[in-house]
Formats: sequence, structure tokens, C-alpha cells
Amino acid sequence: MTAQVSAFKWVPDFAQGYVRDLRVRWALEEAGIPYEPVLIDPDIQASADYRAWQPFGQVPAYRDGAVEIFESGAIVLHIAEQSEALSPKDPAGRAQVTTWVIAALNSVEPHVAAVSEIDLFHKGEAWTEERRPQVIAYLKTRLDAVAKALGSQDYILGRFTAADIILSTVLREADRKGLASTHPNLHAYIDRCEARPAFQKAMADQLEPFAKYAPAA
Amino acid sequence: MTAQVSAFKWVPDFAQGYVRDLRVRWALEEAGIPYEPVLIDPDIQASADYRAWQPFGQVPAYRDGAVEIFESGAIVLHIAEQSEALSPKDPAGRAQVTTWVIAALNSVEPHVAAVSEIDLFHKGEAWTEERRPQVIAYLKTRLDAVAKALGSQDYILGRFTAADIILSTVLREADRKGLASTHPNLHAYIDRCEARPAFQKAMADQLEPFAKYAPAA
Repeated sequence: MTAQVSAFKWVPDFAQGYVRDLRVRWALEEAGIPYEPVLIDPDIQASADYRAWQPFGQVPAYRDGAVEIFESGAIVLHIAEQSEALSPKDPAGRAQVTTWVIAALNSVEPHVAAVSEIDLFHKGEAWTEERRPQVIAYLKTRLDAVAKALGSQDYILGRFTAADIILSTVLREADRKGLASTHPNLHAYIDRCEARPAFQKAMADQLEPFAKYAPAA
Repeated sequence: MTAQVSAFKWVPDFAQGYVRDLRVRWALEEAGIPYEPVLIDPDIQASADYRAWQPFGQVPAYRDGAVEIFESGAIVLHIAEQSEALSPKDPAGRAQVTTWVIAALNSVEPHVAAVSEIDLFHKGEAWTEERRPQVIAYLKTRLDAVAKALGSQDYILGRFTAADIILSTVLREADRKGLASTHPNLHAYIDRCEARPAFQKAMADQLEPFAKYAPAA
């Protein structure tokens, strides 16, 4: 069967180009694996059928002839096992890819998400005034560490891998708030990743249905 | 070479039994792989040498004859590849293990950590009064989803796997705040995981150096 990736029919402006099916689409494009999107809306998202595929009701979920899984990081690692475009084949190289996929998801993304949550969902609430500077300060310590690990390399493990798909999509969320711009090498890294044709194709494909399914004004 | 796992010489009471080297020790015990702890203190943690091993200065970092990696999730997945005690060998089974390791780390743990952060590091700050109930409410939606996925199974994928090492250690952090007690199957799951001899051994080994290295009162 053709691989399937769940994605939203439509999302609000702030999320367009940032929904996590982008990561899976990008990995599939890099690997040259064809797929079809399974477009969902809030009704489908809440359905028992979809929850059986994605227990948290989120996007993306994924299936192919061999697996039915969720979590963008796990899906990207699964795709990476099928393509040297995304990961070296040797155990040591694969372990490095997994390390940076999980570092991005567990040691960086929660701190980026904490800022986004304040700015997008709690704007103007009294608590955010005291809290936001704390969150920013902590995130900066994580960006410092990533910037140091990246150094002058083009990609986090030297060559492009699946780890860059996860790490750069985490960082571009920080960068659009200006938070990565204090680290020129991170900023250049995000630009380098976004310039890849596979990223551009994945982005265009995520955005494509949004005009058609936009709610009436 | 013998596998090495970094761990703290000493941590404050609230962290004893909860530092993440526990996950790696537990995985190694389940797999029957011998290892030696590399005990660190704040000076070592801040050193350039340690940061080259663990860019965020955290615990655990890991090395064996084949790899030098960090992130408890990545290390546990690396160990799982070497032992059927921790993962099925077929690609579909392995992808399920990776899915739940990452689900625990990215879709559950950040929300548990948000509560811990308030309770441990920001207690009494004005912002937490408004924020804490929001964080608890959101975490509950995630615990509901995990409880539903677990159902009446003994382990999240039926049989015990590496995914249970990560998921149960995330959940026991919520449980000690009483947050998982609203879901009897999650509570029983945590008990079931903690009762495993490999968990008990890992826990005892984490705690062992703390008395020796406790700061003078």
C-alpha cells in the first residue's frame, strides 16, 4: 500500500507551515517515497477511529504496508531506516541520529513550545508577564548548547540526516519569534534546511488544501 | 569496553530515585548488560569534557564499545536493539516501541514536567496560582489518552518493552503528585513496572552513592 500521513484540512494562520505532518512529508520527499495525505478536520480528530490511530488526536499519524504508528519523531526514524538519504546504516551512526531526534524533541522543543503557548494561547493573561522572561531565559540556555554542538557544521551530524528534520523544525519555531537570531549559526542552519527542495515541496503540500477548506469569513 | 552511564554523586531529596540515569540502568538490568556508573558533580557537569559528551550538561550520558550518546530515550532504544527482553526484533514491533518511547517523551513528559517545575522551582511565585490549574487540566487530557491506550493490558504494547521504561518513569513522576491516581489502570501499571527486579536493582544503584556524597549539614 501507498504510505499515508494524516494532516489537517485547514488550520489558522499561525499554524500554517508549522503543523508537524511537515516533518513526515519532508522525510518522505528526501527518501523519494510516495505517499498520500489523509486530511482530517476536528470531527474526524475527535472520532474513535482516529483516536485508535493517534491516541492524542494529533497530527501526524502514519501507516504503510508494514506499520501503523504516530509521533512525528518515531515516523521520521521509521522512514530513515529505509533510506540512506536520512541516516547512515551502521549502528553507531543510527544511534547518533536517534540521539539528536530525541534531544530536539525532549530537551529543546518543550522550551520552545512553552513560549509559543504563552504567545498563542494565553496572550494577555496576568501570569504570563512574570513567567515569559523565565521561559525565554531557560530556552536561551538550550539554544546556546545546540549552537555550540552545531558549531560550523552544515548539519548537526555533519551530513544531512533525519535529525536535521526534527531539530530544524523545532528551531524554526523559535526563530520566527526572533529567539534563534542571537545565534547566527542556528539561523543559517535553519535557512540551509529550509532551502532543501524536499522541504519546499513538503511545505507547499501542507499548505495546498488550506485555501480550499478555509472557513467562510 | 564495559558500558558507562553518567549519574550524579548526590541530588536533593526530591530528585532521589527520579534522576533519568534510572531509565538507562533499568534497561541494562533488563538486558543483562553489565555497566559502570560515571559519577559526576556540578563541577564536572559544567566542564568542557562533560559537555562534549552531554551538550546540555545533563544526566545520563552513555558510551560503550560502539557508541557515545546521550538522551535517556535514545540510550534506552540503543540498548533495546541488543536485547529481545526490551523489544521485538521485527521492524513493525520496533517501530511501535519507538512510537511509545517518543510519545512518552514528547506528548506526556513535558506536561508532567510543567507541574514539577512549578512545584519544585517556582513555589509561591504569584504566576503559578493562575497557571497551575491550567497545566494540571491539560496534563489530565494526556493521562486520559494514555489510560485509554493502555486499557487492561499489563504493558503499553502488551508485553514488556523499552517503551514501558520510559512511559512508566514519566507517569510515576505524575503519580507521586497524585495525578495518575484518578486512573486506576495507570496506577496499577506504575506499580507493576516498579515491582520488576530490574527496576528495583536500578533504583538501589542510583540511590547508593547519595549517602556517601551528601553535603555536610
